Amino acid sequence: MPTLREIGEIEAVSRLRAARLETPGVVVGPGDDAAVLRPPAAAELVATTDVLVEGRHYRSDWIQAAALGERLVAANLSDLAAMAARPLWALVSIGARSEHDIEDLLRLQAGIARALEAHDAAVVGGNLAAVEGAEWFALTLLGEVEPGCAWTRSGARPGDLIAVSGAPGRAGAAVRLLQALGIAEVAQTAPELLLAWSSPADRIELAGALSRAGGVTAAIDISDGMAGDLAQLCEASGVGAELDERAWPADAALALAAERLDVALDDLRFGPSDDYELLLAVDPASRDACGRAAADLGVPLAVVGRFTEAPGVLAWRTREGALAALPGRGYDHFGSA
Amino acid sequence: MPTLREIGEIEAVSRLRAARLETPGVVVGPGDDAAVLRPPAAAELVATTDVLVEGRHYRSDWIQAAALGERLVAANLSDLAAMAARPLWALVSIGARSEHDIEDLLRLQAGIARALEAHDAAVVGGNLAAVEGAEWFALTLLGEVEPGCAWTRSGARPGDLIAVSGAPGRAGAAVRLLQALGIAEVAQTAPELLLAWSSPADRIELAGALSRAGGVTAAIDISDGMAGDLAQLCEASGVGAELDERAWPADAALALAAERLDVALDDLRFGPSDDYELLLAVDPASRDACGRAAADLGVPLAVVGRFTEAPGVLAWRTREGALAALPGRGYDHFGSA
Repeated sequence: MPTLREIGEIEAVSRLRAARLETPGVVVGPGDDAAVLRPPAAAELVATTDVLVEGRHYRSDWIQAAALGERLVAANLSDLAAMAARPLWALVSIGARSEHDIEDLLRLQAGIARALEAHDAAVVGGNLAAVEGAEWFALTLLGEVEPGCAWTRSGARPGDLIAVSGAPGRAGAAVRLLQALGIAEVAQTAPELLLAWSSPADRIELAGALSRAGGVTAAIDISDGMAGDLAQLCEASGVGAELDERAWPADAALALAAERLDVALDDLRFGPSDDYELLLAVDPASRDACGRAAADLGVPLAVVGRFTEAPGVLAWRTREGALAALPGRGYDHFGSA
Repeated sequence: MPTLREIGEIEAVSRLRAARLETPGVVVGPGDDAAVLRPPAAAELVATTDVLVEGRHYRSDWIQAAALGERLVAANLSDLAAMAARPLWALVSIGARSEHDIEDLLRLQAGIARALEAHDAAVVGGNLAAVEGAEWFALTLLGEVEPGCAWTRSGARPGDLIAVSGAPGRAGAAVRLLQALGIAEVAQTAPELLLAWSSPADRIELAGALSRAGGVTAAIDISDGMAGDLAQLCEASGVGAELDERAWPADAALALAAERLDVALDDLRFGPSDDYELLLAVDPASRDACGRAAADLGVPLAVVGRFTEAPGVLAWRTREGALAALPGRGYDHFGSA
């Protein structure tokens, strides 16, 4: 199990790119100064970048290398899903310590490749740098969307429905449990939450199906938490939002986590959580078509409220009918909000 | 001078993207989940990524924030130049400490923007993450090239000439002087070397002119050092190389640095150095045309040897006519080579 220091940078880079498959549109792949790519005809490109920082976004005892690679791709796929786009090519930038085992990096790279291959996408280039402190793994993902068909954050209108995929809040709850109890305990007692964090669902197919169904007027991915991302979508669209507790999907695992952490359930529902789920504004006329599209894929899609005319006001109608400010807040990496 | 912690992530990200200009082909710019871009008609895309890591590639007392941003762009422009491509759009990924002054980050961002604007290119997206140790700044650069016109590392043939732009070795010499003597001393006594490191020349125009002139059969940028990058080009092309000392451009500043550092001049000429100069294989029939193209731009382009049939053999013919192994070696970030 040689380290990066033992095999050296050139050999490490060479091994990391050895396993690449042939990918559509790749004219010059990894190993030259840059990749050369043939853009799809009659499509727009979509580009995003995201990073996982050791100690900040993960701890190495919480997640294995391959799953970390898949999660890095998931973070970027989620941005593409929020634009109704499909992935094509990725570039990976790694900051690793000299004592990092090359086999471990190869497993991470394999996780990245596997998550991309599910969409016929692949890594076409990258960079490997030596670091002394925390490691980090950054991915830039390029995708495609039909011209004029990209969703944005800014199209929501008062009266549009608020729809959300999956079970938001689980990833954030898993991180809080991991911090409080450690990986062994969480793996045994809250495996479904741990999985939501370590292996988030991929919403590219759902986004494609909803885009074809029509009626989605705005979208954002939940990467900060429901309250934080809803606030960003509302700000971009100039609207407010009212969520209805009676419509919110029941989640026994989340409720149990709230008990164990001794926090309010709403903190976990709406607070910091990078679930990589879709938060959508949907024209009421398209409610059924979108519902069917999600059901056909077996993906939960809940209508949990509606957008309002009050810009920036996030309201929460409780089970008892009272109207309150929406609890929770997005995650601030710099700790000030 | 508020820090990132004081203003918080959302406000910091918002300020960092505030200064964007309108850029050709940008359908959805910074501020959404991803950028949407209109690829140029009848062109291939070129994509590369590079990073500057604090303590590894720079020290904050060696270079000001705006120049660091420009140097980050230069590292990526250099990869595009080596493919004969032109830049279009960039994504920036930043790992910064919470106590980092936002004004300083804005100056870095302005440096990035300025270096891109020179080519009508711009930042279209990015990411800001909190780190506790060394900071890092990663850039992914997308560009364009006419279909089939990208240079690669693999086209050099025995008999092709070896050409190199600028004054290779200066950036590496500057770093060694900075490490030995500190910034104040180097700024006073070796300003031309410091400038070669802190503000490397941009070879996009040169590459375009040489591509139009024709006859370049392979290319690589000098980002590891002359010997290391020449070895990589030779390996990719399956050829060897023989450099001729009599043809190597005289460089009094480099010679003085060798004296002050008490190292052999050849170590500085060929050893670790990220000069972001072009190292080219040129068909002998195109020597004059390429020379004129460079001269028209006022860029030094020296023919310093030729490629040979001996795969992987890097030879050096001294002023006295003796043939030796090429001194120097590329920089290994992990310290093993």
